[in-house]
Amino acid sequence: MNSESTRDGATRETARILADRLAGERPEISRSLTLNWQDPMAMASRGLEMAGLEYMRAVMNGEVPPAPIAVLMNMSPIEVEEGHAIFSALPGEEHYNPIGVVHGGFMATLLDSVAGCAVHTTLALGEAYTTQTLEVKNLRPLTRDTGAVRAEGTVEYRGRRQATANARLYAEETGKLLASATSTCMILR
Amino acid sequence: MNSESTRDGATRETARILADRLAGERPEISRSLTLNWQDPMAMASRGLEMAGLEYMRAVMNGEVPPAPIAVLMNMSPIEVEEGHAIFSALPGEEHYNPIGVVHGGFMATLLDSVAGCAVHTTLALGEAYTTQTLEVKNLRPLTRDTGAVRAEGTVEYRGRRQATANARLYAEETGKLLASATSTCMILR
Amino acid sequence: MNSESTRDGATRETARILADRLAGERPEISRSLTLNWQDPMAMASRGLEMAGLEYMRAVMNGEVPPAPIAVLMNMSPIEVEEGHAIFSALPGEEHYNPIGVVHGGFMATLLDSVAGCAVHTTLALGEAYTTQTLEVKNLRPLTRDTGAVRAEGTVEYRGRRQATANARLYAEETGKLLASATSTCMILR
Amino acid sequence: MNSESTRDGATRETARILADRLAGERPEISRSLTLNWQDPMAMASRGLEMAGLEYMRAVMNGEVPPAPIAVLMNMSPIEVEEGHAIFSALPGEEHYNPIGVVHGGFMATLLDSVAGCAVHTTLALGEAYTTQTLEVKNLRPLTRDTGAVRAEGTVEYRGRRQATANARLYAEETGKLLASATSTCMILR
Repeated sequence: MNSESTRDGATRETARILADRLAGERPEISRSLTLNWQDPMAMASRGLEMAGLEYMRAVMNGEVPPAPIAVLMNMSPIEVEEGHAIFSALPGEEHYNPIGVVHGGFMATLLDSVAGCAVHTTLALGEAYTTQTLEVKNLRPLTRDTGAVRAEGTVEYRGRRQATANARLYAEETGKLLASATSTCMILR
Repeated sequence: MNSESTRDGATRETARILADRLAGERPEISRSLTLNWQDPMAMASRGLEMAGLEYMRAVMNGEVPPAPIAVLMNMSPIEVEEGHAIFSALPGEEHYNPIGVVHGGFMATLLDSVAGCAVHTTLALGEAYTTQTLEVKNLRPLTRDTGAVRAEGTVEYRGRRQATANARLYAEETGKLLASATSTCMILR
Repeated sequence: MNSESTRDGATRETARILADRLAGERPEISRSLTLNWQDPMAMASRGLEMAGLEYMRAVMNGEVPPAPIAVLMNMSPIEVEEGHAIFSALPGEEHYNPIGVVHGGFMATLLDSVAGCAVHTTLALGEAYTTQTLEVKNLRPLTRDTGAVRAEGTVEYRGRRQATANARLYAEETGKLLASATSTCMILR
Repeated sequence: MNSESTRDGATRETARILADRLAGERPEISRSLTLNWQDPMAMASRGLEMAGLEYMRAVMNGEVPPAPIAVLMNMSPIEVEEGHAIFSALPGEEHYNPIGVVHGGFMATLLDSVAGCAVHTTLALGEAYTTQTLEVKNLRPLTRDTGAVRAEGTVEYRGRRQATANARLYAEETGKLLASATSTCMILR
């Protein structure tokens, strides 16, 4: 199955018409971005055949194509080791909220990713995990001017039934802490 | 400024080449999605001229174009009143993580949006808010088979300096609770 | 084993001597409170023989003596039903922190209690639970002038492996919301 | 005002009578503990005259008597420096819950204390703080057999309007991590 589609976020007809009209009237403020990715289920099935750290390394080395959410969020793992994961990301205008800064969901997605991946690296073959909770703290506003950001996730506790991880998001250029998070994951066998 | 771009999520060269090769080798698993949106700063500046509920209604009624993040997450406000906001969203393959389900960042973004918008509706002209914390609980996995989801945000406490809100995410079809969250916001004057 | 003891909180010798001296110099500011309770392990073993709701009712009806922590925090269950628990408590000077209000630990203990007990009421015979996370929001300061408070806990989600609950703390007299919390519990078999 | 009182935690008459009867029938399971402390408001007023670190040092050195909650929880600061606070505590039977382990409120109180005190050490004269949120993760059960515990709090972010802190609770003897927490505080001027 090959799919191509276009979306402008207006699921309700009225909103879409109005938005299109606005865009038509003001082409100077109209943007377009095309995202490409591969079937994520093909990746996921490969994950079941590997231990956690091995799979995360395959994702990082591009042996497995980037997950769709990584394309959406313009993020990519740059370092993984046992109990630890680092992602790099570049926020863009497409991540903006209606009040003129990057939406908290961008930070939450990055922090969730590195916390989850840090836990993922501790999984033996045959183990899986699911994220039960994510607690995010937004510390400084994030804009396109911030430039590249780096998210670091570290396992704090790894038990038989649960694991916890911490995550921090830094601005690459200034080294400033932008946001932090903790996460609780359930270990499944 | 009119911008058009393409992205495949691989910020590192090696990863991109490998991914392109994979995509080239397996065109049957390659997907493409084009997103369109308007300059979010134009929207944000309009927000400063309105009280919170008035602005949220303008966003909902399409008088203001959808925020870029709303296009990315395929979400849209469908109900706003004082202290309350409801969004509808449709998760797609583009929101998938590397383990074969919708990424927690999709849920976090929706929950953050309705919690924040619920607080936004309580702002007088001249007041602003910033989300300090978001605590998410993932309860059931979300896939494309889940179909449309509905996120409801409600203000729990509105003080002079802080406000808190609760948010819940339901599957439209089954009514099942998929995730929940709480949020603490700072009120700025 | 019958035990009687006295404590003034100064585990380090220097601190104790200084505090005693202060108390000796200023007897007008010295307070004393004697707490009495029964062996909690005798209670806990009875809990294993009952379903959760049955046990919580036995605690509420005094068929099982109050837990030591309930004596310490001057709290008591006043209503339990499936998925729901209400505690009443009276904050005292003994719960004060060094900055002149009731310590957040008092609110956290109450909120944790009603969230946990609400989940406890859903346990079948042979099931147990453990609290993984507690997220507390302090909304209004609590002092002795607040008088009696009422904490209400409600199960939000009960799955096979995890349960979540919400909790709220109100001032009895004014009905004002003082604090709220959420909790994630693991279900054990 | 000099006050002496006795409490057995049963605010409702029926419960108290039943508990007394149980205690009377089984004196071997009856315990008693007398707590002594000084008027906390006298302490609090002294706190207003000092910068945060100076006040925390006075509390630690016993120049200010221990707060009542410190007596209740058998905890005491053993190290404070700018952005950092360590408490030692000894859990006792009086901190037990109805299911035979130390109540989560004991851990929450300790974690809240060191997180709050760590933020307190950053306050200039004339500044104050209030704890908005506390997110606790319970990792290992705590019993009297655990022995002494050590709670460490560290400021993660200190802005003009908000500060965040992390806290961890360890068993002194084994060094094992028992619980952790994060906290968001509002800075007041």
